[in-house]
Amino acid sequence: MPELRKDPISGKWVIISVERGKIPADFVSPSQKRKANGFCPFCHGNEHTAPPEILAFRPASTPPNSPGWTLRVVPNKFPVLQIHGDLHKKGEGVFDMMSGVGAHEVIIETPEHQLSLSNVSQRALEDTLWAYFFRLTDLKKDMRFKYALIFKNEGEVAGATLEHSHSQLIALPIVPKTVREEMDSCRKYYDSKERCLFCDIINQELETGKRVINENDGYVAITPFASRDPFETWILPKRHESNFAPLDKSFASFAEILQRTLKQLDRVLDSPPYNFILHTSPFNEEVNDYYHWHLEILPRVTKRAGFEWGSGFFINPTPPEEAAKFMREARI
Amino acid sequence: MPELRKDPISGKWVIISVERGKIPADFVSPSQKRKANGFCPFCHGNEHTAPPEILAFRPASTPPNSPGWTLRVVPNKFPVLQIHGDLHKKGEGVFDMMSGVGAHEVIIETPEHQLSLSNVSQRALEDTLWAYFFRLTDLKKDMRFKYALIFKNEGEVAGATLEHSHSQLIALPIVPKTVREEMDSCRKYYDSKERCLFCDIINQELETGKRVINENDGYVAITPFASRDPFETWILPKRHESNFAPLDKSFASFAEILQRTLKQLDRVLDSPPYNFILHTSPFNEEVNDYYHWHLEILPRVTKRAGFEWGSGFFINPTPPEEAAKFMREARI
Repeated sequence: MPELRKDPISGKWVIISVERGKIPADFVSPSQKRKANGFCPFCHGNEHTAPPEILAFRPASTPPNSPGWTLRVVPNKFPVLQIHGDLHKKGEGVFDMMSGVGAHEVIIETPEHQLSLSNVSQRALEDTLWAYFFRLTDLKKDMRFKYALIFKNEGEVAGATLEHSHSQLIALPIVPKTVREEMDSCRKYYDSKERCLFCDIINQELETGKRVINENDGYVAITPFASRDPFETWILPKRHESNFAPLDKSFASFAEILQRTLKQLDRVLDSPPYNFILHTSPFNEEVNDYYHWHLEILPRVTKRAGFEWGSGFFINPTPPEEAAKFMREARI
Repeated sequence: MPELRKDPISGKWVIISVERGKIPADFVSPSQKRKANGFCPFCHGNEHTAPPEILAFRPASTPPNSPGWTLRVVPNKFPVLQIHGDLHKKGEGVFDMMSGVGAHEVIIETPEHQLSLSNVSQRALEDTLWAYFFRLTDLKKDMRFKYALIFKNEGEVAGATLEHSHSQLIALPIVPKTVREEMDSCRKYYDSKERCLFCDIINQELETGKRVINENDGYVAITPFASRDPFETWILPKRHESNFAPLDKSFASFAEILQRTLKQLDRVLDSPPYNFILHTSPFNEEVNDYYHWHLEILPRVTKRAGFEWGSGFFINPTPPEEAAKFMREARI
């Protein structure tokens, strides 16, 4: 008998095939190992082909937009929103709209085309996290913006148009509905119990252990109880932290657990395409008792039946308990 | 400058590229014309390879599960939920779950492998709609079920595993969150204005006409103001109707507008893969003043960037006004 499980944060129900669940060998996805043929605008030496850098980690002796960097943040050459202009909020009968003002940036995580986040140096991964943090800190000063989405599309199937490892940031004049809902749901829980819902989940997961993949001094990686996708993985700070920030002034622990988890995913699912999305509190309520930032990793190994778009109802053929076991046992 | 638009029903914001919008020629999707090689369990003559039929339109002289039918409804051979058993609702700390009890049925819309809903006879399309109606009417008698999702995956890209034209029905012991949210949003609007939100949208769309694709005596087909996907199309009854049902005892008008719209889609986007999802009121509040049933058609012509799963935030490169114009002008 399959199981219907409810995600306590989103309120979404998921069908989980607890018997005859699909194992990694059942998933065939194109491996995301780099091919590196042809011109790449993100590669070392091609700096002039991307828009001028916003932020770069490079020796002080090198000028901006020249080689020598280890990480760069540049505006997206084909931005979905435009940085200049006012919001011009207006209505048209029952409809509401505003100008598409926002920032759309690309974080080029390494100058090396062949590398992915699972095999860059841990330093490069820490720098990537610092870049996220610096950009969030800078963008929140712009009063037009309410939220910044940070996400990564790894592999063509996951939506990447360029192979070279990069993440993206979209700063928005609105809070996306999914974020709004998570905040509301957590606030409601807190109002009733005086506890953070995520903290309660983390404590319960650490107690039973069956959905825990990795743990270190600061963080825990789990397959969520109501996983929407096979091998869906969340990484959360164990201590209550409402918004994305370094732990004791360092991203070392987070980089360590993130890379370990990505290496396990690569091992178990043969370098699958995936998305990850940073979930953090909106700019205007960054520090609070009820929300808990985390990173959600969604491997793209199943063809999601289209009706899931429209219904918000998911079917997951792999129980998260089994996925966690495969991940834990992966030799990396 | 792109535009941020809010869907008044779901509350989701969408980025719409109003300048330099993508036109049909920009979308390359595998055409869904039938190939028909190999064995097909849904074809005429292969009735014994599917589970026994639940409903069939066939001459009285033919026995069940034999040839001669024009439409059949059978249980899904690989159901995501099981029809027998109790719900066994239970909690596990912060988590809620229940047994995966439900119905999972397949509506085989035609015995002819080569046909799609855009070129079956109008009678076959009307029969398909009657089959939806009869199955909903039957399943709502089962007190375990709260909602039935009716949807169609056309084409492999859209999640279809069999080429032969069919739709699916999943009856659920819960109301999916997206449906719940639509109901809540519409109820709130009604509480404030004493009018149905969809009725207001329909009136406004018919007045401006710019997003109207088709209209007949009973129904209107529009591209919604905050379309998530290029060429997203909704078909709605013009008169307030909260739940899916024939209009004046007939599905002729709905079949007519649905087929016309699908033909236009086939023409404009070269028989694209698509999903459609029937949105109707839950079983326990079928007749009400605030919700308005409709069919949402989502062509699958763009690779949806994965972060949209996780963020609920959509980017649509084709303004719905342009999509509607292409559809209206399609020669069918």
